[in-house]
Amino acid sequence: MNAAVQELLATLGPDLVKVGDDIPQRNWADQVGLEPQRPLALLLPRSTDDVSKALAICHRHRQPVVTQGGMTGLAGGAHPGEGEVALSLERMNGIEEVDAASGTLTALAGTPLYLIQRAAEEAGLMCGIDLGARGSCTIGGNVSTNAGGNQVLRYGMARKNVLGLEVVLSDGRVVRSLNKMMKNNAGYDWTQMFIGSEGTLGVVTRVVLSLHARPRNIQTAVLAVKDVSDAIKVLRAAEKALPGGLLVFEAMWSEFYGIATTTIGVPAPIERGHDLYLLVEAPTGDAGPEAFENFLGEMYEAGLVRDAVVAKSRAERDKLWALRESVYEYGKHLPKQIGFDVSIPLNRMPEAVAALRRDMPNAVDGVIWVVFGHVADSNLHINAMPPRYTPEAKLKIEKLVYDLTASLGGSVSAEHGIGRMKKPYLSMTRTGPELALMATVKQALDPLGILNPGRVL
Amino acid sequence: MNAAVQELLATLGPDLVKVGDDIPQRNWADQVGLEPQRPLALLLPRSTDDVSKALAICHRHRQPVVTQGGMTGLAGGAHPGEGEVALSLERMNGIEEVDAASGTLTALAGTPLYLIQRAAEEAGLMCGIDLGARGSCTIGGNVSTNAGGNQVLRYGMARKNVLGLEVVLSDGRVVRSLNKMMKNNAGYDWTQMFIGSEGTLGVVTRVVLSLHARPRNIQTAVLAVKDVSDAIKVLRAAEKALPGGLLVFEAMWSEFYGIATTTIGVPAPIERGHDLYLLVEAPTGDAGPEAFENFLGEMYEAGLVRDAVVAKSRAERDKLWALRESVYEYGKHLPKQIGFDVSIPLNRMPEAVAALRRDMPNAVDGVIWVVFGHVADSNLHINAMPPRYTPEAKLKIEKLVYDLTASLGGSVSAEHGIGRMKKPYLSMTRTGPELALMATVKQALDPLGILNPGRVL
Ligand SMILES: Cc1cc2nc3c(=O)[nH]c(=O)nc-3n(C[C@H](O)[C@H](O)[C@H](O)COP(=O)(O)OP(=O)(O)OC[C@H]3O[C@@H](n4cnc5c(N)ncnc54)[C@H](O)[C@@H]3O)c2cc1C
Ligand SMILES: Cc1cc2nc3c(=O)[nH]c(=O)nc-3n(C[C@H](O)[C@H](O)[C@H](O)COP(=O)(O)OP(=O)(O)OC[C@H]3O[C@@H](n4cnc5c(N)ncnc54)[C@H](O)[C@@H]3O)c2cc1C
Repeated sequence: MNAAVQELLATLGPDLVKVGDDIPQRNWADQVGLEPQRPLALLLPRSTDDVSKALAICHRHRQPVVTQGGMTGLAGGAHPGEGEVALSLERMNGIEEVDAASGTLTALAGTPLYLIQRAAEEAGLMCGIDLGARGSCTIGGNVSTNAGGNQVLRYGMARKNVLGLEVVLSDGRVVRSLNKMMKNNAGYDWTQMFIGSEGTLGVVTRVVLSLHARPRNIQTAVLAVKDVSDAIKVLRAAEKALPGGLLVFEAMWSEFYGIATTTIGVPAPIERGHDLYLLVEAPTGDAGPEAFENFLGEMYEAGLVRDAVVAKSRAERDKLWALRESVYEYGKHLPKQIGFDVSIPLNRMPEAVAALRRDMPNAVDGVIWVVFGHVADSNLHINAMPPRYTPEAKLKIEKLVYDLTASLGGSVSAEHGIGRMKKPYLSMTRTGPELALMATVKQALDPLGILNPGRVL
Repeated sequence: MNAAVQELLATLGPDLVKVGDDIPQRNWADQVGLEPQRPLALLLPRSTDDVSKALAICHRHRQPVVTQGGMTGLAGGAHPGEGEVALSLERMNGIEEVDAASGTLTALAGTPLYLIQRAAEEAGLMCGIDLGARGSCTIGGNVSTNAGGNQVLRYGMARKNVLGLEVVLSDGRVVRSLNKMMKNNAGYDWTQMFIGSEGTLGVVTRVVLSLHARPRNIQTAVLAVKDVSDAIKVLRAAEKALPGGLLVFEAMWSEFYGIATTTIGVPAPIERGHDLYLLVEAPTGDAGPEAFENFLGEMYEAGLVRDAVVAKSRAERDKLWALRESVYEYGKHLPKQIGFDVSIPLNRMPEAVAALRRDMPNAVDGVIWVVFGHVADSNLHINAMPPRYTPEAKLKIEKLVYDLTASLGGSVSAEHGIGRMKKPYLSMTRTGPELALMATVKQALDPLGILNPGRVL
C-alpha cells in the first residue's frame, strides 16, 4: 500500500477510505466504455472538511486524484486512471436550503440532479438544469462539466444557473462563496474558473443555484421544415411572437427521423420524407394554447412550416418526445456507435449538414449515421454506426467530423467536455495561445498536477 | 521622459503615443470625482496589434498601465494613478459583424454601447446590456466591469451576454476566442476570468455578444406596495403569470419618492405616503396590455398592490421613468452625495431597509438619504447627503452601510466594481481564502503587476 493511501487510512479511517475488494464496481468506470480500472483507493468524504484533509494528504504525497460524481460523464473525466485515488462525492448528498424569497437553492455537490429539481418544484419554482442523466448525475458533476441539456435555450448551460460555490483546492484549502445574489461584482468572480473545468482545478463541494419561475401551459409540437435555414427562421419568429419564448427546439434530420420511425418503431406523427423535423416546446402561460397554434398557423401560411402536430395531452406529448429519445434505444437495434457532440455556428449549420451527407457515405462503406441535436444552442449530435467498428473506421469518421467542425469555426465539444476522450482533438478548435493560457491557470491552481491528471489539458 | 515612453514613441510613433500637453483632459479622470491626474503618456492604439506591441514594451520596462474605455466607471478603475501610462481604446471603435442568423454581434472593445444597441436593433434584434451611461461607456468597459443596468432581471449582467473575447495579456500576447456559439465546452472558458476583472488581468480588444429577440408590447407601470416582502411577492407572481416575465423591476422607497416628487418636482402619479413604489415593465407580445392589466388587477384584489398607474402612451411612460431618473438631478438641488451600490440577499432586504431607517438619522445629524434600486437583482443603491460633506461624516455613513451589508451576507459592490474606491472594503464581504485565490490569478496572469495596479486587489 502506498504511503499516501496509508496516511489517508490512518487519518480518515476505513469508513471514509476503501481499498482493494471494498471498492465497488461503480467507481471503476464512467459511461464512455473504457476498460474498468480499480482505483488505488476510494475516498468517501462526508463533509468538506473530509475532502480538505484528504486533498492535503494527497498533495503532500503528490498522489493523483480523480473526482467522481454520478459517473454519467461522456468524456472519460471521472474514469480512474492507473495509480489514481478516486474521491467520490456520493455521500455529500443533500439539499441544505431552498430560499423561495431569494429564489435560490443550496446543495452539497453530490446531490443527484433529480432531487434538486424536485425540491425546487416543491417550493413552487424550477431548476434550470435538466438532462437525460438526471437520475444519477450530481449537481457537482453538472457544474464541473458546465452541463447543457434540454433547456439551454431558455436557462443557459449550468454556468448561467450557478450563483455560488464552495471548492476545495488541490492543497486542501477551502474557498467558499455561497452567494445568493444575482449581482456581486466585489473582486473577481473566481467561481467561474471552476465551472466547466471538469475537476482539474478543484473539487466542488457545495453549489448555490438560482431558481426560476415554473413555466405554465407548456405546448409541445413536432414540425416539418424544408431545411435548417428555415428552422432558424422559425426559431427567430417564435422568439418574437411568443412572449415566453421557447423552452425546447430540438432538430432531427431525415436520417434520424427515418430510423426512429422504422428501426426503433416510434409511431410517425408526420409522414416521413421531409428533410428536417423539429421538436418544439413553448410555455404560453395565461395566453393558452391558442397563442401557440396561431403562431404555427402563421408559420404554415408563410411556408416555413410544412406540417405540424401539436400534442393535446400528456400521452401525446410523451409520444412526440419518444422520437427524440429513440436514440437511447439504438444499442438494442443497431451497430455500435461513435458519438459526437460538436458545436457549429448557426450561420454555418446548413453547410455542416450538407457536407456530412456528401462525405459520410464515402468515409466508411455502409455506415449508418444520424444527425440531431439542440440546434438553437448551435449544438449538433452526430452518431455514426459503421458496419464493422474498427479503429480505422473510427479514425476516419472522427477525422471527417472534427475536420469539418474546425473548418466551420465550430467546437469539438459543445456540452460533454473534453475529459480524456477528446483531449487529442482539443487543439483543432482552440488556438495555441488559448491552450497556453489554460495551462497557466492549471499551473497556478494545481501546480503539482494531482487533480484529474491527463484530462482536458 | 522615461525609457518606456521613449520606446513606445519610437516604436508606435507620435500618432499613437501622446505626451505632455497633447494629452486631453478626457483621459485625466473618470466619473468618481478624484483629483484629475495627467498620465505619463496616452496610448491610442488603432488595432489589437498596436495594443500588443504597446503592452510588450511596457512589460519589458515594468511600466504600469491603466486601461481606459468610456471613462464612465464609478469605481475609479480608469482614473490614472501617478506614473501610469494610459491606454485608451477610443479609436478601436466599430462593429465588425452583426450575424442575424447566429444572433451575435462582434465589435471592437472601444465601441460605445449605444452604437451596439442601434446595430442590434437595425438587425431586428436587441442587445441585452443597457445602462444610463450608454452614450459614452464602451463595450470593453461594460465587459471589464461586468456591468449591470436596467435589464439584468431578464438578460443578466454583461457576463451572460458575452460569447467570445479577444484579450491582450500583460506581456502583449493576444488570446482570441471570437466564439459565436451558445455552447463551447472545449477546455476552460478562459474568457470568464476577464469579465468583471476591471482591467487588472488583460486588455479586452474585441467582444462577441449574443443578441436577443426584441420584446414587443412593453407595458410600464408604477405600483405602490406595503413593503419589500410584498414587492418580492409581486415579483414572483409576475414571473409566474406573465409568460414573458418582467424586464424592469425598480424599487423606490418613500424617502426617494418624496424627494423625486417634491425637491426634484416630478409629478406624482400615485399619492405620497406609501412605503414603497415599484417601476415595472413587462413585454406582453401578442397577449397585449390586457394580460398585464389583469395581472395588476389580481395583485390589487390580493391586497399586494395598493395603487397602480399604467402608462397609456410613450409620454406617460417617460413620466413614470422620470421618477426613477430623478436621482440624476440631485446634483442641482441637494448637498453632495455619498453613493452606494450594494447587494443584499432578497430574504434579508426587509431587515436592511429597516436598519437603514433606524440608524441613518443617528449616524449624521440632519442627513438626507434615499434608498432605491434594481431590487429584483438584489441590488440596492443608497445615496446619503450629509448637510456638511466632511471626511468624518463620509466615514460614519460608509461604516454604517458596509457593516450592515456585511452582517446581512451582502456584497460591497453589486454592479459598479471595486476599482480604487472600494478596495478598502473588499475584505468585508470576501473571505481571506477568496482574496488569496484572486491574488493567485492576478499573479499568474500579470506577474509583474503592470495592469491597473492598485485596483481591486
Ligand atoms: C443518458 C445520458 C444523457 C446525457 N445528457 C446530457 C446532456 O443533455 N447534456 C450534457 O451536458 N451532458 C449530458 N450527459 C453527460 C453527463 O450526464 C453530464 O456531463 C453530467 O453533468 C455529469 O455529471 P456526473 O455527476 O455524472 O459527473 P461525473 O461523470 O462523475 O464526472 C464528470 C466530470 O466532472 C468531474 N466532477 C464530478 N463531480 C465533481 C465535483 N464535485 N468537483 C469537481 N469535479 C467533479 C469529474 O472528475 C469528471 O471530470 C448525459 C449522460 C447520459 C448518460
Ligand atoms: C450616468 C451613469 C449611469 C451608470 N449606470 C450604471 C448601471 O446601471 N450599471 C452599471 O453596472 N454601471 C453603471 N454605471 C457605471 C459605468 O457606466 C459602467 O461601469 C461601465 O461599464 C463602464 O464602461 P466604460 O467604458 O466607461 O469604462 P471605464 O470607466 O473607462 O473603465 C472602467 C473599468 O474597466 C476597465 N476597462 C475599460 N475598458 C477596458 C478594456 N477594453 N479592457 C480592459 N479593461 C477595461 C478600466 O481600466 C476600469 O477599471 C453608470 C455610470 C454613469 C456615469
